[in-house]
Amino acid sequence: MPDSLEAKSTKAKIGVLGASGYTGAELGRLLLRHPGAEIALLTADRRAGQEMRDVFPQFAPFGLPKLVSIESIDWAGTALDLIFCALPHGTTQKVIKNVLGKAPAIKVVDLSADFRLADLDAYARWYGHAHQAAELQREAVYGLVEVHRDRIKTARLVANPGCYTTCAQLALIPLIAAKAIDPDEIVIDAKSGMTGAGRAAKEEMLFSEVSEGIHAYGVGHHRHMAELDQEFTLAAGREVVVTFTPHLVPMNRGILSTIYVRGQGELRPEDLHVMLLKHYMNEPFVHVLPFGTMPQTRHVRGSNMTFIGMTRDRIAGRAIIGAALDNLVKGAAGQAVQNMNLMLGFPEVMGLEQVALFP
Amino acid sequence: MPDSLEAKSTKAKIGVLGASGYTGAELGRLLLRHPGAEIALLTADRRAGQEMRDVFPQFAPFGLPKLVSIESIDWAGTALDLIFCALPHGTTQKVIKNVLGKAPAIKVVDLSADFRLADLDAYARWYGHAHQAAELQREAVYGLVEVHRDRIKTARLVANPGCYTTCAQLALIPLIAAKAIDPDEIVIDAKSGMTGAGRAAKEEMLFSEVSEGIHAYGVGHHRHMAELDQEFTLAAGREVVVTFTPHLVPMNRGILSTIYVRGQGELRPEDLHVMLLKHYMNEPFVHVLPFGTMPQTRHVRGSNMTFIGMTRDRIAGRAIIGAALDNLVKGAAGQAVQNMNLMLGFPEVMGLEQVALFP
Amino acid sequence: MPDSLEAKSTKAKIGVLGASGYTGAELGRLLLRHPGAEIALLTADRRAGQEMRDVFPQFAPFGLPKLVSIESIDWAGTALDLIFCALPHGTTQKVIKNVLGKAPAIKVVDLSADFRLADLDAYARWYGHAHQAAELQREAVYGLVEVHRDRIKTARLVANPGCYTTCAQLALIPLIAAKAIDPDEIVIDAKSGMTGAGRAAKEEMLFSEVSEGIHAYGVGHHRHMAELDQEFTLAAGREVVVTFTPHLVPMNRGILSTIYVRGQGELRPEDLHVMLLKHYMNEPFVHVLPFGTMPQTRHVRGSNMTFIGMTRDRIAGRAIIGAALDNLVKGAAGQAVQNMNLMLGFPEVMGLEQVALFP
Amino acid sequence: MPDSLEAKSTKAKIGVLGASGYTGAELGRLLLRHPGAEIALLTADRRAGQEMRDVFPQFAPFGLPKLVSIESIDWAGTALDLIFCALPHGTTQKVIKNVLGKAPAIKVVDLSADFRLADLDAYARWYGHAHQAAELQREAVYGLVEVHRDRIKTARLVANPGCYTTCAQLALIPLIAAKAIDPDEIVIDAKSGMTGAGRAAKEEMLFSEVSEGIHAYGVGHHRHMAELDQEFTLAAGREVVVTFTPHLVPMNRGILSTIYVRGQGELRPEDLHVMLLKHYMNEPFVHVLPFGTMPQTRHVRGSNMTFIGMTRDRIAGRAIIGAALDNLVKGAAGQAVQNMNLMLGFPEVMGLEQVALFP
Repeated sequence: MPDSLEAKSTKAKIGVLGASGYTGAELGRLLLRHPGAEIALLTADRRAGQEMRDVFPQFAPFGLPKLVSIESIDWAGTALDLIFCALPHGTTQKVIKNVLGKAPAIKVVDLSADFRLADLDAYARWYGHAHQAAELQREAVYGLVEVHRDRIKTARLVANPGCYTTCAQLALIPLIAAKAIDPDEIVIDAKSGMTGAGRAAKEEMLFSEVSEGIHAYGVGHHRHMAELDQEFTLAAGREVVVTFTPHLVPMNRGILSTIYVRGQGELRPEDLHVMLLKHYMNEPFVHVLPFGTMPQTRHVRGSNMTFIGMTRDRIAGRAIIGAALDNLVKGAAGQAVQNMNLMLGFPEVMGLEQVALFP
Repeated sequence: MPDSLEAKSTKAKIGVLGASGYTGAELGRLLLRHPGAEIALLTADRRAGQEMRDVFPQFAPFGLPKLVSIESIDWAGTALDLIFCALPHGTTQKVIKNVLGKAPAIKVVDLSADFRLADLDAYARWYGHAHQAAELQREAVYGLVEVHRDRIKTARLVANPGCYTTCAQLALIPLIAAKAIDPDEIVIDAKSGMTGAGRAAKEEMLFSEVSEGIHAYGVGHHRHMAELDQEFTLAAGREVVVTFTPHLVPMNRGILSTIYVRGQGELRPEDLHVMLLKHYMNEPFVHVLPFGTMPQTRHVRGSNMTFIGMTRDRIAGRAIIGAALDNLVKGAAGQAVQNMNLMLGFPEVMGLEQVALFP
Repeated sequence: MPDSLEAKSTKAKIGVLGASGYTGAELGRLLLRHPGAEIALLTADRRAGQEMRDVFPQFAPFGLPKLVSIESIDWAGTALDLIFCALPHGTTQKVIKNVLGKAPAIKVVDLSADFRLADLDAYARWYGHAHQAAELQREAVYGLVEVHRDRIKTARLVANPGCYTTCAQLALIPLIAAKAIDPDEIVIDAKSGMTGAGRAAKEEMLFSEVSEGIHAYGVGHHRHMAELDQEFTLAAGREVVVTFTPHLVPMNRGILSTIYVRGQGELRPEDLHVMLLKHYMNEPFVHVLPFGTMPQTRHVRGSNMTFIGMTRDRIAGRAIIGAALDNLVKGAAGQAVQNMNLMLGFPEVMGLEQVALFP
Repeated sequence: MPDSLEAKSTKAKIGVLGASGYTGAELGRLLLRHPGAEIALLTADRRAGQEMRDVFPQFAPFGLPKLVSIESIDWAGTALDLIFCALPHGTTQKVIKNVLGKAPAIKVVDLSADFRLADLDAYARWYGHAHQAAELQREAVYGLVEVHRDRIKTARLVANPGCYTTCAQLALIPLIAAKAIDPDEIVIDAKSGMTGAGRAAKEEMLFSEVSEGIHAYGVGHHRHMAELDQEFTLAAGREVVVTFTPHLVPMNRGILSTIYVRGQGELRPEDLHVMLLKHYMNEPFVHVLPFGTMPQTRHVRGSNMTFIGMTRDRIAGRAIIGAALDNLVKGAAGQAVQNMNLMLGFPEVMGLEQVALFP
């Protein structure tokens, strides 16, 4: 069919590096139905030579490129428009440095933590080694669309934010930037589904280890803190350090951040709510609930939405904010596609309009 | 914007009766993103006057008609093209009789069991009372698209099949019709997620009653048997009665049917597999897995796909078939939209191309 | 068998009012294997006349008294030593008033909220009506054994604490009483399993409503706050009001409290940890984990243990405390049996030594 | 305290080989509260040198021997009365051969599959290699107490049955032995919780891979078939081969077997039910439900009970049997302790009287 061939040739050619993980699968789900994108390359080093259906059977009915190893690719020879990089931290910076060295016109959305910290010293401190691609780090744009939309449009390399940090930032940055809350009194109690831990075979992520219970982890030292520090400090115009505690919840998808704040001066929780409501009035993927209504993660499952709620604490001046998103969509692959849309000139919402799957 | 208004006016106007249940929500999810349909009416008697977001918060970001009661509707005055009826058994036949009495041009996809049994005696036997709309029953077409596609295209009233029965029929009807298996030796052991039980507040469906365990129910007398009898008998050209045992599994969505069959004559499981493979080669929503591979419900979650697998039993001549679908999609709302597409002349797959959500 | 009859006659005769709820079942589980207790009476108004196995099939192998209605009982004629009252709030105070009016020698452990608040004004404010048994309220002892052990030993009426409040109090009372933390800077983010919501058939507790997601509820106004206020104020010797947010987690059992505190003066988190460690050294049912280790609810499931962990926040002077218990055991039935043991002169740990069931 | 020391010295000294797996933990849970047993040795090769609480935090409050490696043990020098062997298949036969070679007086309950098959050829066929301890195999007694009680009492080496096979055998052996059902028409559709897969870190057992879905596995070739063949053939006095399909269910514990049978001659399902009822009347750990009632796995969770139900199929002469047990208790550790009780002369039910934990 010449028609469809022609149609195909006008689509952007997309590669997904690390397609055998959960974020890779989620990129596959979204891109397969994205009107402007064509999946042209899928890599998975340990599964190279296999089909995507062998690692994720839900793709069985669809035609997709065979999985290849990264090192087998002739980057200069590909005609890719953009790659998503869903590789582990550390590996990523070397891979992207190599890709952009050989094919500098490719655009990159990196879903790892490797290019999120602008401060190379902070990077070294939190990750225990010097950054391997400092030049690229200087070029990278932090990809929280609702905050850095304009810079993302012209970026070559976008660092897709972490799932926890996206959730907390969307709730807090408008309030911090407006100096509406005390930046020294922020407590973020975050709860995540299990897909946040990735697909690596670890004993502590077996069904029987993590179902039917809840626990905190990384208490006092989770690496997403570095990202929060950077962005909150930027928004506040002065150093901000918050308390942040992540928990694992027996569910697949979802992050809920319950955030305890104190309004500045005479600002009441109702005032903070109005500020968020106005701030997000025209954002397609952030929805502020009526005052006093708190969000549930299940109501954003599978969608790119973030739901934010605000309630008055019984202690005067204090407010409790709830923010919920799907860690694999707005917290990873959906936000990455949102970044892609901006970088390639597509409508921002293209391919991201699925309604949440509940129940 | 006159443009979009005009565009809107060319869409089919759709009503959903019983929008506050799980099937209603699922119809909302699919129809909101269906290019040819516009949700023009939503009913929910007990929630009349409320917004859809009040009963299903996932719809909060979207504009939808307010929920109304069925009796408040002036059917002759609506300009609806088609209604989905997701009401409880019994109520349905009266409602549809009334609607079609007043507005005979409206097309109807009924998701209840009310119009599935062509034999009014069988209906009375299984449901304990005479059918209230016998005339309409004679007109109704059984809406398993893969079997009755042509008749559905011209039907006014389609009875959308049950979730269990869709799953078992898609696996078995081609084999029964081809006389490839012994119709007297079929055992269907079916497992369903909890949404199959609906949203009514019952003690036995509380989280703590049904999580962390499994059990059979309706053993020996589940009403879906009547539907299986009808369609299997039709396919076989002689009476077929099967053993069917449903179970409740602690998951939201999904039906898995594990089916034990014996091939006729010299037919081996491999031969049965080839028959299914050929039969479904061009069906968009049925995918036959490679021989020896069994399906998982999670790999069709949220999609309109049915996955079918076939494996050799160690007892010669016997085969074990697995069939998996999402009870709310191919088992209910997705199949209903597939029926709508045929009835209104849309491409059959329109609005149903979502990739499954896994994990 | 005269032997066993004789043995039986030396056991305490116990009644359980409200045996058809989850707390009632849990009392049954514990009392059936308690060496000093004999279940002599089980009530369940709506299930009167049925066997316990009809409402909880796990009791099928055991002989238990038939369920009766409360009003059918001749209290003066029973020879009960103690009753557990697991009835809804409001009903309880009338029932107990009636029981003790007719049979003043019966001891009572009440698992509702009815007798927890010593301040009748606070009761009226939080519950919206005057207390119906003010005399008895004055007599009632708040049954958190680790705090009020001595008074419980001689009490006739013990108000068993709430599940959330037990968890938070065990973590905080030693620190508040020692003036080791700032009582105005306490944030309690609590997460509960679904059994905490009881067995009433409510739409919002259906499996498909609450599985695969998490949400906060009762934000800013949960009634357990009244109980926390009372006990924290008592421990501090001045008014204490804390921030407390409960969440529902898709698991059956367990409460995890993540508590954010600030040490007074120079006290570091390590110092707070040592204080808890010493305080609970000889308590059989509270175990303080090594510094930096946080508890998981699953590791106390089915047991009467509370696990407490303490970790340093990265903000100087702030500590994060985790406390985990099983809401049906230490948070309800187990604690009630612990109270019974004290009230009847049994060893405190009798019948409560089960090891947690994990996985 | 000399008293308790003396008391201790009269207890049987027990070792658990492979204490870091789920079966090991479950043995720990049961033995810690067994009045006649003392845990004297715990091995875990990869965790040698650690405490049990490091691998299973639920044991934190209890004093237990440190974990050691198997090879560090001087078997002749230990004064163990009995060891439980919860090691992987294959390893086990070498370890036990070595232990009994050095300390022939030790009794052994082996929870692996290594000594279950009396026919060494069948072993080699199903496991792909010759048995390494053929002598011991000849001595081993198959430890399904309800069938082989007398031989177990005097055995030195007992092969604890598999979880699936215990469940199916308890339901079927009385009927097969009585020639009450057609042995050529048995279909066993079994559903297991996730702990049955053990604690090894495998991708396919991660929470996000196996929650929220169900699937069959090992279809047509699961190794438990060998065990069923042996015992059913023994009971029938002629060769019996059954259809058996295991499934994985998103729950931690429990096996449900739904079994399809045909009564011989005129025997109706009601007759089969009476036969089971009589057969198990005095068995402490098998409970036959009223006719028409089917069991749920959750009602035996954490207990050593098996619940069996029987229902009439609508096809004349066919019955549907349900059998439910906890795979870690009656399907593994509980049955092992039951075997120990017989081998050491304790009352059979000692330490196994816990009531099921529901919800």
